[in-house]
Amino acid sequence: MRPKIDPLDLAGKILQGDRLALARACTEVENDTPAGEAVISSLFRHSGQAHIVGITGSPGTGKSSLVNRLAKEYRSRHANHQVAVIAVDPTSPFSGGAVLGDRVRMRDLFGDERVFIRSMATRGALGGLARQTNALTQLFDCAGYQLILVETVGAGQSEVDIVRLAHTTLVVEAPGLGDDIQAIKAGILEIADILVINKADHPGADATERSLRMMLELSHQRPKSMVYHHHNTGEDSRAAKDEEPEGWLPPVLRTVAIENRGVSELLDEVAAHRTWLEANDLWQSRERQRVRADLQSLLQERLFSAWRTAQPVDLLEVMIERVMSREVSPFEAIEQVLSGRG
Amino acid sequence: MRPKIDPLDLAGKILQGDRLALARACTEVENDTPAGEAVISSLFRHSGQAHIVGITGSPGTGKSSLVNRLAKEYRSRHANHQVAVIAVDPTSPFSGGAVLGDRVRMRDLFGDERVFIRSMATRGALGGLARQTNALTQLFDCAGYQLILVETVGAGQSEVDIVRLAHTTLVVEAPGLGDDIQAIKAGILEIADILVINKADHPGADATERSLRMMLELSHQRPKSMVYHHHNTGEDSRAAKDEEPEGWLPPVLRTVAIENRGVSELLDEVAAHRTWLEANDLWQSRERQRVRADLQSLLQERLFSAWRTAQPVDLLEVMIERVMSREVSPFEAIEQVLSGRG
Repeated sequence: MRPKIDPLDLAGKILQGDRLALARACTEVENDTPAGEAVISSLFRHSGQAHIVGITGSPGTGKSSLVNRLAKEYRSRHANHQVAVIAVDPTSPFSGGAVLGDRVRMRDLFGDERVFIRSMATRGALGGLARQTNALTQLFDCAGYQLILVETVGAGQSEVDIVRLAHTTLVVEAPGLGDDIQAIKAGILEIADILVINKADHPGADATERSLRMMLELSHQRPKSMVYHHHNTGEDSRAAKDEEPEGWLPPVLRTVAIENRGVSELLDEVAAHRTWLEANDLWQSRERQRVRADLQSLLQERLFSAWRTAQPVDLLEVMIERVMSREVSPFEAIEQVLSGRG
Repeated sequence: MRPKIDPLDLAGKILQGDRLALARACTEVENDTPAGEAVISSLFRHSGQAHIVGITGSPGTGKSSLVNRLAKEYRSRHANHQVAVIAVDPTSPFSGGAVLGDRVRMRDLFGDERVFIRSMATRGALGGLARQTNALTQLFDCAGYQLILVETVGAGQSEVDIVRLAHTTLVVEAPGLGDDIQAIKAGILEIADILVINKADHPGADATERSLRMMLELSHQRPKSMVYHHHNTGEDSRAAKDEEPEGWLPPVLRTVAIENRGVSELLDEVAAHRTWLEANDLWQSRERQRVRADLQSLLQERLFSAWRTAQPVDLLEVMIERVMSREVSPFEAIEQVLSGRG
């Protein structure tokens, strides 16, 4: 039996910098418990300050080392700030997925009391990964963390959902990873605010840079027509990034993370992107986008459970059987139930 | 201006094998229009027959060639059956993402009037990919297609969502794709009903098979605890695959798709898996799982839009502003609105 949680007590401890309390709150928030919600609610007034930076890229690009170095560099510039690292990538050493050498290097960060590392349990709750990441980000923001680094593996389309919550998105490439990955890159490139060629001391860095710049050009010529479909609402809404004024051309930077080369310049660009967002009111509009999506999906959940509780019989089960027997289609079943003809 | 659509007319034409009508319906269904829903509703009594097979794997494993060969082999065995291919993979030649050589080989299928190929527009509607794939699958099932092959790139966690709709899931590997991918494989392996080592004539096939069998063993020793979190409902429910009796140990097969080697044996295994599902009542339970998820997400949408329409003012916008100003947390905002204190 775990002891009962007092959310207000937990929230108070978090504000005092109690890392155990924060870890406990992470678990509650990930598990979507009432206690997790209460912690966020009681700290919510502190939120809205964090710079959320998504770092995505294929396995083998060394993005975990880069995250590590970025966090260290940021901490050396801001002695009183706190940094959170959320590792969603199953291959990340932060998530326990990499070889010993990587894991040892990561130790750099573990000694720093102002850096908090949390890896997502990608094995469970698959459908809810983006949502969980969002909730954790919110918690760190509430807890007063100034920089939140979210590391994901950028091979699948769903990573885009996770990255959407970021203010600034870094797409990390590395020389010589093969052409098969190129086709995926094209989609991922469209979400990049900053492109990083890590392992830039490896052969082929020039070729990688050329191909990235070519793809960048293509992607910026194409009319911006990416529409995000909120599958919770059926509503289409243009993503915040599409509404942006021209003016930020994603820079291409070279780094060698394990030697700490190019990391300082990269952090400068991250800061420059924040300044640009704020100067163009995009900081606010991205935040609004996130709040809207969050409220919509919460509302849908609550309305559904309220509806279900209000039914004298479990209508959902009745509908399932009628659809299973092909008596009605799902659309017809819902139409009938909601119009009172069920 | 496109002409107005008569769903009943479209449905009638689809049943007569009119491919243009089917293509038109695909577009409507993908775009989530009332006409698309009406087409599915009017054909729904024909559905429930299709064997839905998911094919997933990293880029470079040659899974498109395998899909191609599987479709041909199936057609040569079942002269009157129809096969649909849904390509969700952005690197698939079916989706236009591959090199000329591949594209030429794919032509094999294009001459067959009983094979219908549809590629998903992965560029748009990113969040809704799993949902769109599900809807298309439903349409092909309604249209009387006996085999539906869904090809996805299996690198990201979200592909799991797409694959969840399949009765049978093939995970395709190839020798020598590098160890960086291994960590991802581990997660994907858990959803495999059949493992395929394609390009088995390449060096390293033995090593690939050994490592697959090792991972398989590990994954079958581990207690089955994967819980799918329905982020639409906040409800946890064990996935159908977890409720399954022991008894299906995923076979590991070797193929060389471009030479058509091992394809017939693979199709035998696909058929054997269907027989096993049916013998263990799992065909029905996977179907029920799908219907339940489908009805839940539809209900949530409809309840939300009904709620929104019923408000005298746009409460959602009011809530967004109150959350943006940190007056209340999202949870508090919703609590207040739904309890009438908004």
